[in-house]
Amino acid sequence: MKETIIKVIKKVKLEDPILIEGLPGVGHVGKLVAEHIVEELNAEKIIEIYSPHFPPQVLINDDFIAELVKNEVYAYKSDNKIDILIVVGDHQSVTNEGHYEISGIILDIAQEYDVKRIYTLGGYGTGQLVENGTVLGAVNNTDMIEEMKKYGIEFRDNEPAGGIVGVSGLILGMSRFRDIDAACLMGITSGYLVDPKSAQAVLDVLCEILDLEIDTQALEDRAKEMEKIIAKIVEIEQMQMQHEIGADEDLRYIG
Amino acid sequence: MKETIIKVIKKVKLEDPILIEGLPGVGHVGKLVAEHIVEELNAEKIIEIYSPHFPPQVLINDDFIAELVKNEVYAYKSDNKIDILIVVGDHQSVTNEGHYEISGIILDIAQEYDVKRIYTLGGYGTGQLVENGTVLGAVNNTDMIEEMKKYGIEFRDNEPAGGIVGVSGLILGMSRFRDIDAACLMGITSGYLVDPKSAQAVLDVLCEILDLEIDTQALEDRAKEMEKIIAKIVEIEQMQMQHEIGADEDLRYIG
Amino acid sequence: MKETIIKVIKKVKLEDPILIEGLPGVGHVGKLVAEHIVEELNAEKIIEIYSPHFPPQVLINDDFIAELVKNEVYAYKSDNKIDILIVVGDHQSVTNEGHYEISGIILDIAQEYDVKRIYTLGGYGTGQLVENGTVLGAVNNTDMIEEMKKYGIEFRDNEPAGGIVGVSGLILGMSRFRDIDAACLMGITSGYLVDPKSAQAVLDVLCEILDLEIDTQALEDRAKEMEKIIAKIVEIEQMQMQHEIGADEDLRYIG
Amino acid sequence: MKETIIKVIKKVKLEDPILIEGLPGVGHVGKLVAEHIVEELNAEKIIEIYSPHFPPQVLINDDFIAELVKNEVYAYKSDNKIDILIVVGDHQSVTNEGHYEISGIILDIAQEYDVKRIYTLGGYGTGQLVENGTVLGAVNNTDMIEEMKKYGIEFRDNEPAGGIVGVSGLILGMSRFRDIDAACLMGITSGYLVDPKSAQAVLDVLCEILDLEIDTQALEDRAKEMEKIIAKIVEIEQMQMQHEIGADEDLRYIG
Repeated sequence: MKETIIKVIKKVKLEDPILIEGLPGVGHVGKLVAEHIVEELNAEKIIEIYSPHFPPQVLINDDFIAELVKNEVYAYKSDNKIDILIVVGDHQSVTNEGHYEISGIILDIAQEYDVKRIYTLGGYGTGQLVENGTVLGAVNNTDMIEEMKKYGIEFRDNEPAGGIVGVSGLILGMSRFRDIDAACLMGITSGYLVDPKSAQAVLDVLCEILDLEIDTQALEDRAKEMEKIIAKIVEIEQMQMQHEIGADEDLRYIG
Repeated sequence: MKETIIKVIKKVKLEDPILIEGLPGVGHVGKLVAEHIVEELNAEKIIEIYSPHFPPQVLINDDFIAELVKNEVYAYKSDNKIDILIVVGDHQSVTNEGHYEISGIILDIAQEYDVKRIYTLGGYGTGQLVENGTVLGAVNNTDMIEEMKKYGIEFRDNEPAGGIVGVSGLILGMSRFRDIDAACLMGITSGYLVDPKSAQAVLDVLCEILDLEIDTQALEDRAKEMEKIIAKIVEIEQMQMQHEIGADEDLRYIG
Repeated sequence: MKETIIKVIKKVKLEDPILIEGLPGVGHVGKLVAEHIVEELNAEKIIEIYSPHFPPQVLINDDFIAELVKNEVYAYKSDNKIDILIVVGDHQSVTNEGHYEISGIILDIAQEYDVKRIYTLGGYGTGQLVENGTVLGAVNNTDMIEEMKKYGIEFRDNEPAGGIVGVSGLILGMSRFRDIDAACLMGITSGYLVDPKSAQAVLDVLCEILDLEIDTQALEDRAKEMEKIIAKIVEIEQMQMQHEIGADEDLRYIG
Repeated sequence: MKETIIKVIKKVKLEDPILIEGLPGVGHVGKLVAEHIVEELNAEKIIEIYSPHFPPQVLINDDFIAELVKNEVYAYKSDNKIDILIVVGDHQSVTNEGHYEISGIILDIAQEYDVKRIYTLGGYGTGQLVENGTVLGAVNNTDMIEEMKKYGIEFRDNEPAGGIVGVSGLILGMSRFRDIDAACLMGITSGYLVDPKSAQAVLDVLCEILDLEIDTQALEDRAKEMEKIIAKIVEIEQMQMQHEIGADEDLRYIG
């Protein structure tokens, strides 16, 4: 496996779908919201993406089955409202080039489904424990700003200061070249933990934009579950880092 | 040498072989078990794998001969029991993409020999000095769980918490796409040192599964030997890290 | 997007243009000078370069629009003086190979426009707060040394001690093979902060060489603005580094 | 420049030449010896190797000219003794794959010149300030061991413990596949500094093997010069590391 593999599980017919992306990031806000939408709308998995740019790793699912780290695309076919494609995943790329490649692949899928608008979701970590409920916006097209402001999304000078890193950012930048409107909705978060309150704020705004009703009760439970797993991983990793025994230390020049 | 080289030393005829993989990892459990099996069964080397994804390094063997870091495949042709392919090696890849490539190559070899089942071996470091003797399992096919449990292999919710990293994990995930059953057997270990007790537990389970009799006396000696070498490497490397003299420091922007 | 993209916005006709490069580096001296020249000469953007070797990131511009990290080439068509191509950018490559590739692309553009001389701009950080006003030089052709000295540019034995890293250096080295004269002008700077005084010194020398008159009033404001943004980015990043929550931690071998 | 460039400066006729490699490494022993031989034998440069795997950097030579980091091959055509190819260079690769590629290129050159034996030179850092004068050996062919021992070269069990890293090691391992005999001569050194005493020991042995007479007076001066430059680079780099101002910090996930 030397190249990224796009595994199409099912072709679906969607009418003018929008695309939502929520991969892991600060506060796991984007991932939390996107996975919640997939669950609550009972969306259907249509594509799996495997890549040598993802961590070289399998995750163990609830049935004790090992699954390669992957990104997934789900489809939601509505009866009377908007159709939606949702991109979720276990991890983002670990190589620099991987971010660009995966973003390009997501946009290829968007174009194939004739997507005209994309919402990428994320958290914006401020290091402070306040400001919950605020959703910061960035767009790739000036026309969208006034519309976004109507939903309470804030646009602030020079924020996010460091720009937007990873797929959520690149999709915004790259979709300009394909004439797709895109906005990034960032829940302001401390950045310390999985932040269900910040996710709630992003979800509320998104539901209003899309005229969707999604039950948010389960969101907090989901966040707790996610945090428990992350805490365990971090614990294990810290243990391992302290006791590495030469399996793969940095190499030093001898010759 | 810009590409991975697969050097076929010998073609053998095997009947429905299973494949065992034991490359370096936590507690060196997998490597210890797999190399022990190669020695005790007097298995025959049939393939060498060289790769620019391995550390850029030679190791000095007992005859003072420098050999490129490599992975190897050994074959064991049984008279009246199961035939076995065994994958061992000095190192795993040091690049992200390398793990995916090497795992794919191992599966290509498995398919060429018509392997229907793979066991990948490893350690699961918990940071605690207890629990020796426990072997944790993960599979790529639900049907295998009950069978594995019969041999005392444990399946625990959300463990390993961080999934399985490296070739042992990727082989599990990737073999699903090739219709090969695969299980990862992980000896629980503190993770501090080369762990012969944990290796013994994995070997015992594996022998039972494969209906093999393998003398385990030498296992502890082998572990001590391995640990001595690793300790020396770590010592040398720490010394070198403290006294790096500009041979290859990180680069800083001047222009 | 797996490859670097060169987006030609406009073709212009220039007469014997020189090329100036000023990408981010120590003290942001080169970037400060080059962007100032673009602004003051009201130069026109003719090329955008996007690359998977740049950070996987968008920056938010003053209109809240997300733009991919990029390098840009501007053209200044003079009435009665020298024509100029100016290379500026948000970032340099983050991969080793990227520096070589981007430098090659800049030289391809230089050749297309029949450039005979290149000035790359940068800072040379000494760690000391003195020496402001000194401009150090390096060239790719002995004939240029005397000429450069006339403008007060200093040439010192074994300086810069570590050579010149990044595009400013590579362009010097690589342009030799294309028969293009090139000099690197390095403003000596402490290296602590964005250094407008050092930038002023480089700009003064460059204006004299090119017989240009460029107002330098705005330079200090521009430096302050740049520093404010950088300070904010650093602050955010330090916060994030302290509170990483498992989104993308280093991988450890388990299997 | 996306690929490694081999620039042939001159074709020479050599009779059964041996090849010596001395690139930067621990104690700069190999580089010191190889460059000394080039100077003292007045060897002629025949090949330059440029690569995107080398640091993205130019070095400033004594004439203030910026030159790309490179590896070089020199040829010494003897009247009545052995002909020699000598590989020297400013840096080794900074990418993992680069080491394998450059080693392969050096062996291609060796084969073109019909080289039957290679000596790679290096230091073996022990962290202790004694043992000067000892030269440790590794070979790629058992037949060479007795011959090497005659010259006082020592072969020790499990040393170097970590194997031989970089081009000096890879050439040994890779030349086996091309039927070229190769030995690595490692001067034991503390590893703290450029070590002219260790270099002297390696040079003495090498001269005896090749039946060469090379004046060693200049070796210590050369070492002092090299050390002075390295000290300056390290000083500059440490300064820069302390005062990085956001030019190229690690990226953190926001989106």
